[in-house]
Amino acid sequence: MKHTNVMKATLGRLPAYLQYLKSLNPDENVNISATIIAKALGLGEVQVRKDLSAVSGAGRPKLGYKTKALIKRLEDVLGQNSICRAVIIGAGKLGNALLEYNGFANYGLEVDCAFDVDPEKIGKADSGKQIYHLSELEEYCRSKSIEIAIITVPAVAAQSICDRLTSCGISAIWNFAPCQLVVPDGILLQQENLALSLAHLKLQMNNK
Amino acid sequence: MKHTNVMKATLGRLPAYLQYLKSLNPDENVNISATIIAKALGLGEVQVRKDLSAVSGAGRPKLGYKTKALIKRLEDVLGQNSICRAVIIGAGKLGNALLEYNGFANYGLEVDCAFDVDPEKIGKADSGKQIYHLSELEEYCRSKSIEIAIITVPAVAAQSICDRLTSCGISAIWNFAPCQLVVPDGILLQQENLALSLAHLKLQMNNK
Repeated sequence: MKHTNVMKATLGRLPAYLQYLKSLNPDENVNISATIIAKALGLGEVQVRKDLSAVSGAGRPKLGYKTKALIKRLEDVLGQNSICRAVIIGAGKLGNALLEYNGFANYGLEVDCAFDVDPEKIGKADSGKQIYHLSELEEYCRSKSIEIAIITVPAVAAQSICDRLTSCGISAIWNFAPCQLVVPDGILLQQENLALSLAHLKLQMNNK
Repeated sequence: MKHTNVMKATLGRLPAYLQYLKSLNPDENVNISATIIAKALGLGEVQVRKDLSAVSGAGRPKLGYKTKALIKRLEDVLGQNSICRAVIIGAGKLGNALLEYNGFANYGLEVDCAFDVDPEKIGKADSGKQIYHLSELEEYCRSKSIEIAIITVPAVAAQSICDRLTSCGISAIWNFAPCQLVVPDGILLQQENLALSLAHLKLQMNNK
C-alpha cells in the first residue's frame, strides 16, 4: 500500500501514536478508537481521526481500529521495518550536529558517517561516528548501499558533490547548501532552508 | 496590510523576485509582469503569478505590477524594513551552526548571540559572534529588545529556558529541542523537527 498522502505534520505525530499503542496491554485492547488516542495524548479528536485515516483508512464505526494492525501499519509508514542508511557530506558544525542528532531512528533512518576534505576533521567525531576523507565517498556508498545523502558543504562545492553522489547509487538528496541543485531524473531532491522557518515565525509575529 | 496567507514555499521564492526586480533599470521598467519575472528566473508562470498575488494582489491586466511598489511590498513582507533580533540558547553544534548561518539576513532577521552554561563555551564563537553565560539571558533580552529566541538545548532543559524567556519580553520561540513546550497565550511557538524532512524524503522514496 502506498502512502504518498501522508503530510509532514501527520508524520510528525505518528511516533507518539505508535508509542502510545505499544504501551497498551495487547490482550485488553483488541480495538482502539481515535477518541481514546486523542484523549490519552491530549490532541484534538478531529486531528487524530484525520491522521489515522491518512495512514490506515477510516476506522470501523463504534469499534475504531484493530490495535495490532494499526501498530503494524504505523511501523510501516514510519519505515521502522525497513532501515534506510544515510551519509553526510560536509563535517562542519551543521554536519556534526546532524551526525549526533538522535531523532532519526524513530523514522527508520540511520546516519552512518560523514565525509569531509579537511584532514583535521577525519577520524572519530564527538558523536562516536566516523568522519572519512571525501575520496572514500563513492566506494563507501556503493559497498554499504547508502540510499540518502545529506549535503552540508558550502554552496560552491554542492553541485559537484551532488554529481558524485548520483553516480554511485544514491536515491535521494537532502540539501542544506544554499543553492539549487540539478539532479538526474529519478533522484529525489529536498532543499532545506533553515532561514524559512524563522522568517515564517517573524511573519506571523508581524501579523498579530 | 496583513499577509498571513503567505505560505512558507512562497516565502522561500520572494528573495529571488526581489533581487531580480532590484537588478532592473527603474526608468525602463515602470511595470513588470509575472510572465517576464517567470522567464527571467526560470520558474513556472502560474507559480510566480500565485506568489505575487499572495503578497500584492492581482496585477493589472496587460500591465502587471508597478515595479517600485512591488519592490516595496516584497521588502515589507520579507520584513527587510523591520529588523527583528533573535538569540540562541544552547551553544552546542546546532546552536553554533545557526549562529554562523548567514541566510537569515534575507528575511530581516539578525541572530545576535548565543547563551550557554558551559564556561568553556563562553566567549567569541568561530562566527565572530559572542556566547554569553546563561545567567545574563534576561538582562540581555530586556535591554536589547530581543523578539525571537531559538532553543537548541537538550530536551530536559528546554521548558525552564522557555519559562525564563517568556518572562522577559520574547514574542516567539523556535524550538529545536525534541519536546513539546508550553507557552503562555500570546507567545508564538514553532517546533522544529529535523528528522521529519528526512523521514518525508524516505517516505517519497518508498513510494516510487
